[in-house]
Amino acid sequence: MTTPQAHFQALGVVHRTIHRADPAAVELLSRHGVSTVHEALGRLGLMHPRIRPIYPQARFCGTAITVLLQPGDNWMLHVAAEQIQPGDVVVAACTADSTDGFFGDLLATSFVSRGCRGLVIDGGVRDVRDLTEMGFPVFSRAIHAKGTIKATLGSVNVPVVCAGALVHPGDVVLADIDGVVVVPAHLALQVAEAAQAREDNEHAKRQKLASGTLGLDMYAMREPLAKAGLRYID
Amino acid sequence: MTTPQAHFQALGVVHRTIHRADPAAVELLSRHGVSTVHEALGRLGLMHPRIRPIYPQARFCGTAITVLLQPGDNWMLHVAAEQIQPGDVVVAACTADSTDGFFGDLLATSFVSRGCRGLVIDGGVRDVRDLTEMGFPVFSRAIHAKGTIKATLGSVNVPVVCAGALVHPGDVVLADIDGVVVVPAHLALQVAEAAQAREDNEHAKRQKLASGTLGLDMYAMREPLAKAGLRYID
Amino acid sequence: MTTPQAHFQALGVVHRTIHRADPAAVELLSRHGVSTVHEALGRLGLMHPRIRPIYPQARFCGTAITVLLQPGDNWMLHVAAEQIQPGDVVVAACTADSTDGFFGDLLATSFVSRGCRGLVIDGGVRDVRDLTEMGFPVFSRAIHAKGTIKATLGSVNVPVVCAGALVHPGDVVLADIDGVVVVPAHLALQVAEAAQAREDNEHAKRQKLASGTLGLDMYAMREPLAKAGLRYID
Amino acid sequence: MTTPQAHFQALGVVHRTIHRADPAAVELLSRHGVSTVHEALGRLGLMHPRIRPIYPQARFCGTAITVLLQPGDNWMLHVAAEQIQPGDVVVAACTADSTDGFFGDLLATSFVSRGCRGLVIDGGVRDVRDLTEMGFPVFSRAIHAKGTIKATLGSVNVPVVCAGALVHPGDVVLADIDGVVVVPAHLALQVAEAAQAREDNEHAKRQKLASGTLGLDMYAMREPLAKAGLRYID
Amino acid sequence: MTTPQAHFQALGVVHRTIHRADPAAVELLSRHGVSTVHEALGRLGLMHPRIRPIYPQARFCGTAITVLLQPGDNWMLHVAAEQIQPGDVVVAACTADSTDGFFGDLLATSFVSRGCRGLVIDGGVRDVRDLTEMGFPVFSRAIHAKGTIKATLGSVNVPVVCAGALVHPGDVVLADIDGVVVVPAHLALQVAEAAQAREDNEHAKRQKLASGTLGLDMYAMREPLAKAGLRYID
Amino acid sequence: MTTPQAHFQALGVVHRTIHRADPAAVELLSRHGVSTVHEALGRLGLMHPRIRPIYPQARFCGTAITVLLQPGDNWMLHVAAEQIQPGDVVVAACTADSTDGFFGDLLATSFVSRGCRGLVIDGGVRDVRDLTEMGFPVFSRAIHAKGTIKATLGSVNVPVVCAGALVHPGDVVLADIDGVVVVPAHLALQVAEAAQAREDNEHAKRQKLASGTLGLDMYAMREPLAKAGLRYID
Repeated sequence: MTTPQAHFQALGVVHRTIHRADPAAVELLSRHGVSTVHEALGRLGLMHPRIRPIYPQARFCGTAITVLLQPGDNWMLHVAAEQIQPGDVVVAACTADSTDGFFGDLLATSFVSRGCRGLVIDGGVRDVRDLTEMGFPVFSRAIHAKGTIKATLGSVNVPVVCAGALVHPGDVVLADIDGVVVVPAHLALQVAEAAQAREDNEHAKRQKLASGTLGLDMYAMREPLAKAGLRYID
Repeated sequence: MTTPQAHFQALGVVHRTIHRADPAAVELLSRHGVSTVHEALGRLGLMHPRIRPIYPQARFCGTAITVLLQPGDNWMLHVAAEQIQPGDVVVAACTADSTDGFFGDLLATSFVSRGCRGLVIDGGVRDVRDLTEMGFPVFSRAIHAKGTIKATLGSVNVPVVCAGALVHPGDVVLADIDGVVVVPAHLALQVAEAAQAREDNEHAKRQKLASGTLGLDMYAMREPLAKAGLRYID
Repeated sequence: MTTPQAHFQALGVVHRTIHRADPAAVELLSRHGVSTVHEALGRLGLMHPRIRPIYPQARFCGTAITVLLQPGDNWMLHVAAEQIQPGDVVVAACTADSTDGFFGDLLATSFVSRGCRGLVIDGGVRDVRDLTEMGFPVFSRAIHAKGTIKATLGSVNVPVVCAGALVHPGDVVLADIDGVVVVPAHLALQVAEAAQAREDNEHAKRQKLASGTLGLDMYAMREPLAKAGLRYID
Repeated sequence: MTTPQAHFQALGVVHRTIHRADPAAVELLSRHGVSTVHEALGRLGLMHPRIRPIYPQARFCGTAITVLLQPGDNWMLHVAAEQIQPGDVVVAACTADSTDGFFGDLLATSFVSRGCRGLVIDGGVRDVRDLTEMGFPVFSRAIHAKGTIKATLGSVNVPVVCAGALVHPGDVVLADIDGVVVVPAHLALQVAEAAQAREDNEHAKRQKLASGTLGLDMYAMREPLAKAGLRYID
Repeated sequence: MTTPQAHFQALGVVHRTIHRADPAAVELLSRHGVSTVHEALGRLGLMHPRIRPIYPQARFCGTAITVLLQPGDNWMLHVAAEQIQPGDVVVAACTADSTDGFFGDLLATSFVSRGCRGLVIDGGVRDVRDLTEMGFPVFSRAIHAKGTIKATLGSVNVPVVCAGALVHPGDVVLADIDGVVVVPAHLALQVAEAAQAREDNEHAKRQKLASGTLGLDMYAMREPLAKAGLRYID
Repeated sequence: MTTPQAHFQALGVVHRTIHRADPAAVELLSRHGVSTVHEALGRLGLMHPRIRPIYPQARFCGTAITVLLQPGDNWMLHVAAEQIQPGDVVVAACTADSTDGFFGDLLATSFVSRGCRGLVIDGGVRDVRDLTEMGFPVFSRAIHAKGTIKATLGSVNVPVVCAGALVHPGDVVLADIDGVVVVPAHLALQVAEAAQAREDNEHAKRQKLASGTLGLDMYAMREPLAKAGLRYID
């Protein structure tokens, strides 16, 4: 028997059976932005800001197929393709820093044919013009034409640490221009509801602020600021 | 009595009375690009190039409300909002490196309702899609969804060092795709005139160069180059 | 007599006679993307991914005029202008890290009047809005308004190391959103043919992948993966 | 009931009961270097190389008390102190990049009095001269005098991602000049044995290489190199 | 008449008359570490942690001669030498990022003959073995053999921003392995007293912590932690 | 026939016959520091300052065996070992950024048995404690325990770009705490003489400066400074 952490980032395995988050919860989460969902999750789950979209409108929400890559080697992305189901996104971590171009338009074509909604990779991508024309959203740490090899095993559908965030297969991954957030599968619905509540709440706040009310008053900050010792000088 | 440097980056104070640059000078400066104004200022006043616009067309020119933030804490941006007058821009420095998302669409809504023209922040921003749709220009060191707290005092309208540049409240801050330049308030008119002179001068140069004249000849560089020892080899 | 490496990065010289790659080969290479050409060259010749286009559509292919700059000094770019012939591109290296704005719209105007197709510089550029409006493609390590001086000799048309790549005068330099690749002049035709062969080959692959064939099967990876020890777990 | 990932990086909790690795296994692991143990673990478990010792001889091996910090806030390190038992080490992750000086000689004094063997922190430390004189080994991403606050909850003894590595409370953490490696608690003995086997094996290899045998021959590389196409040119 | 900020980072000027901090206050400050003084100053005044000592024991405390350098140009360091009086230290900022080797053993010899106690430079240094043997403490952003030129004017004894900190001529600069802190001249005595008070206070705390008292109890943190919602789980 | 640049960074080749610099010139160069030799070479030949020694006293001077590595793959270092002759040093470049631990004590043992004097690698190293005890000088971009594979061909004894410097097999490579400089083999004697002349010259300068003469006077800078417009203000 293996405990959950036993297979963490183990090499050379592909888990074919994963527990995906409820599609209804994924759909609900997809209505919100990354910043809102990160707040709804209790200010957790974000990837490092070095991960950026390859074009400004790139955006996706789906369930994670996780990949653990070796530096400069994209073999496992081909292995991952077979595990993709419609509504999935691919999350690719690497055992060491690498900016090589692991992913390009051929793999994107294959991923799209499987119903893949996007890719986040803590590495480089290439064929960015083609990917942009295809409208295939990629979030990466670099754009680099450097080719990769197919020589060493990594894994597919094990828990991975990608750009500082722990991702389990089946987790919901939401990505937009603000970054990438990971919602644990079993919390998806609960977080979607919290995000909606936050959004509803923000709408009213936005209108108040637009009409000239200050955050100082709306959030009742004047008293705590004074208590903390803030002094106004004319 | 406090000398000017006495309150430099002091914590816990808000100066309500600041000396803003002459609006006419601000208007004149707003006609030029950052590179031109930096030259007109004697090649000084630039922020570090890590500060980038959140969308390519972002651009502003206004008088500075300065903010000194604590890392991961955006309390002082709310305090600053109250000090904004139409034509101001907000310049937010931080006491330590931080890429957290200090600023988003709610604060932007509040700033806009006060007449604010833009923000430069040596930290992160979020809600970038909303900010772009609002046409609110932000120049930042990062885009990051990470939420911030409201716990520790910084200051408003003290001199700050933002991305390597010293900014006094009321200084003119001009930002475009080439970066961000700070013009001391009392030099604004003089720098605007120098910028205009430079621009006039450049127009003629541009036409000469477009017609095929070489910079080598236009700037009379051949002699100093020869004196420095430049050798041509066929 | 000087051996080839004798004048490598020598300072204070301008080579007026260089051996440019065959224009027909340049034209053939210009039909392909950087990633394809890098593969056709045997996965070599790339510059470091810190070099990025100033606007997403920037793209060029031409023969290299090489420049060795001193940090914060753009004198040699003026010297280089005179050596430009129609179809050339300028490749500017620097003797030390520098993000100063070595190049702006005036130099671009001059370069364009000589028939220059673009610039790659391991330094900063400015006047980016003008350069974008002119449609003059620049690939650089930074955008920075910082002005430069004209005080110290570098060289023109010596071999240079630019962003990690060795460039000889006359080499073909191809740049697009995936990065910058350098093709030695005497290999240009051969590489163009290899690129075309690769492209033809990729077209068929793309169609197969689009129709649902997996890379695992198309590239016959299942056996080597099993041999390497890959285990599937249900 | 909470699943293992349910409390991953949850905020505001302290787990008082953790499962520490077997002390005998810790002792066995402590005899080896980080590189050896990383290999014995199947080339996994390393933190990012940005984590460096504050003095060259710094070294430790112990069981992890994990801490999740907020940027610029060291409150949770005080909370963690109470959970330390002799033989423990503290592993401190942060919810965002922060180089502030979270830890100094006072906290070190407290940690030492609890039997703590060392600290790894993905943040900054200060009082480095004192820490060096105390012989308290710290591995950090920065040395920085910047003070921190005590305002926001993080957690203690939840799984954390520290410098790219997943750490569960009770895991074995080994640190030396080559970096930091994390061995899951339940694998500790098995990895210790593999490390010893590797070490025994390396001893013989070292002697052979010292006597002039080439790795090419000792590892029988000549044939695979030739098969891969390596050509020797005289 | 020029206002204080009027000559901020002006180019081409040397102020021969500066107001140095009281030597007695400098002596008092020199008894403390950088972290203590930074706290005594209200958690302000630090340079960026990229500034590191060239050898671990490097340490100094003195009054600032400020220098504004141009990238790759060390002319102003020679100009500064003449302004040095016994007890001074030199603080060198640069108008743009530069890691060139602005300073080596010849300049150090000259500085030492003038009574200089050390150098902090937001650039590179060289001849590090000689500097170490001389015991001349330097804090820099890089070690680099790259030579510099003498071509463009900067300034001496104008206020400068060095590694993010504003430094006025005559300010006290204290540097040790924890970093570099700047104390405004007119606050030197007051800060020295606050540092001493803090030190006295820390001594008692250190003993309590060494004897096993927890910070949780010594600082009475249990109640605010509970109020903030901290939960202990067994 | 291949031209010199034809085999530049070609993959899959090992040149067994290289032209090493004259041992007498190597010996002469070894008497000087990196900064002096870099100046004697006309301020050229330096590697990027990211390359640092693994211990402060590390130092070497020898003739280069060059290696072109693939990221995360150290196969070619074993191939290179066979080409080492007494007095050689190994210079290892990589086709892409990689901080993996390509080199450790086993390879060092092998290199030493061949008479190798040191290694410079634009990658990571491990077993640093052992290397330090052996006194084997290594200059690298990182220290990292991460293991590497042996799967893809690079080359040995082709010209390489290592950390920004072009290195031909047989060139003299000198490394000390100031960095790494490469002297083309055919210039070795000439550069050694220039270095000696410079050193002789510096000795006199050092004595003058130590006795209180200012660089301003010794280098006759006062007039050019005045001409450039330097103003002294009392």
